[in-house]
Amino acid sequence: MPLLVVGSVAFDSIRTPYGQAEEVLGGSATYLSLAASWFAPVRVVAVVGEDFSDRHLGVFKARSIDIAGLERVPGRTFRWRGEYVGDMQEAHTLETQLNVFAEFAPKIPPSYHDSEYVFLANIDPVLQLHVRRQLPKACLAGLDSMNYWINGKLADLKSALGAVDLLVVNESEARMLSGHHNLKVAAESLQKLGPRAVVIKRGEHGATLFAGTSIFSAPAYPLDKVRDPTGAGDSFAGGFMGHLARTGDSSDANLRRAIVYGSIMASFAVEEFGLERLQCLTQQEIDTRYREFKTLTHFDA
Amino acid sequence: MPLLVVGSVAFDSIRTPYGQAEEVLGGSATYLSLAASWFAPVRVVAVVGEDFSDRHLGVFKARSIDIAGLERVPGRTFRWRGEYVGDMQEAHTLETQLNVFAEFAPKIPPSYHDSEYVFLANIDPVLQLHVRRQLPKACLAGLDSMNYWINGKLADLKSALGAVDLLVVNESEARMLSGHHNLKVAAESLQKLGPRAVVIKRGEHGATLFAGTSIFSAPAYPLDKVRDPTGAGDSFAGGFMGHLARTGDSSDANLRRAIVYGSIMASFAVEEFGLERLQCLTQQEIDTRYREFKTLTHFDA
Repeated sequence: MPLLVVGSVAFDSIRTPYGQAEEVLGGSATYLSLAASWFAPVRVVAVVGEDFSDRHLGVFKARSIDIAGLERVPGRTFRWRGEYVGDMQEAHTLETQLNVFAEFAPKIPPSYHDSEYVFLANIDPVLQLHVRRQLPKACLAGLDSMNYWINGKLADLKSALGAVDLLVVNESEARMLSGHHNLKVAAESLQKLGPRAVVIKRGEHGATLFAGTSIFSAPAYPLDKVRDPTGAGDSFAGGFMGHLARTGDSSDANLRRAIVYGSIMASFAVEEFGLERLQCLTQQEIDTRYREFKTLTHFDA
Repeated sequence: MPLLVVGSVAFDSIRTPYGQAEEVLGGSATYLSLAASWFAPVRVVAVVGEDFSDRHLGVFKARSIDIAGLERVPGRTFRWRGEYVGDMQEAHTLETQLNVFAEFAPKIPPSYHDSEYVFLANIDPVLQLHVRRQLPKACLAGLDSMNYWINGKLADLKSALGAVDLLVVNESEARMLSGHHNLKVAAESLQKLGPRAVVIKRGEHGATLFAGTSIFSAPAYPLDKVRDPTGAGDSFAGGFMGHLARTGDSSDANLRRAIVYGSIMASFAVEEFGLERLQCLTQQEIDTRYREFKTLTHFDA
């Protein structure tokens, strides 16, 4: 099944202790689409400016991503400049130019109207709900958000949560959104807002799935080289949703596999700068890492 | 096989957002012994003062812990007063009275000389090495340490590491001791100092075992109630070493099971104040939590 992704497309300028990159293609919809494209056909809804070149479009096309919903408008593409220092636990934003993203009004092309699998990346929750309502056939919709919206548009975010099946957030967002520090209590409380499953991303510590009374914890894949953490969370969501769309199965057992694929795509993303690693993967590399994940977590009963 | 534990016995005064306790029995050797006692016979080497009562001895006796090495000397027992606030991520030490622990010179009773399984909890690394050298039959010796010794007695700590098989430390200690932030790189570097396996405790995020090229990551057991984090790391080490001593098997597969038992004992320890939960467990509760751990981490290939 195709996966529809709504989010941002940006030019990122990134500095980490391991190097730097200037105005490389990024944004939540980009990382999500590229990661998911290794699992299922992907449709993208986002906005770019006049400076978005054929070379940039080529990154999507090379992964056969449907860009009918990638709207080009007058102005400049969203730009983000950030830095990671020391242990790279946190991105320090140096500059944000929203540019055309400031007026983003997602338009769903008619060819996308039959989408059953949808992921609403971190944008204004009013827009997330607007998109969700235009997709009556969606059987599995996921949503990500961030502290900015939790602080500024909590009521709208709660409305959007009431219209989706899956919530994918990081630890601090789960705590802030629920008002509970304990993650089990937080996840139970968030499920009451709508989503039947809550996925809590824990960065280098892995991810935990809460679905009804079932809990599944996966570690992060142990890397000896992390060069650029940008896009890790979106790549996780891309692998997670991509696997669900590919299989058309949202059983507990398959949600667990999806968490592992999400973790794998995040691990690839951070090994190189920007999209480098996600662009040139092989199916064999993904399969190998899945088997390694099994070894990483296996113990005998 | 019996497990010999060397460490501290203390009276802890603890305040957390969920309550407080005054002068309750604690210390690394106490948590370790009690946790391990659910798996194997335990021998303890530690020092207490004249204020250590029969009631306190009774806590060890009730778990059939061999206290031939629990030396009573003139003076007062080690006291620690600490507080956990907010998310309880860190203990804030309010007061430390080393008392008789300041002059601790571990004495190994003749009846302990045949010990094959040994855990040297966090004490002066000079003493750790001294104890290790008095136990020629030890086939599996583990060691814990802390930032204080890494900063103050690094050369001695490295000597002690050269004489043990297992290192059990938390994330920040692994980073400080190795000089590497990346935990995989840190663990590889620490193995070169002596221990063939390095266990990194990650608190609420679980634990990771590095043994040769094998890596095993276990999550923490998800609790909806954490009342007192005191002794979690020592309880982990107790379950871990206790299982290894019980089985006499230090294969990779069994080290993995030991990590799970360690995680389980830590999860019990933090559910109630002080030793409350570790004193009154049942074998069935441990077995049930082991099965739940399997469910928590299981995904299909």
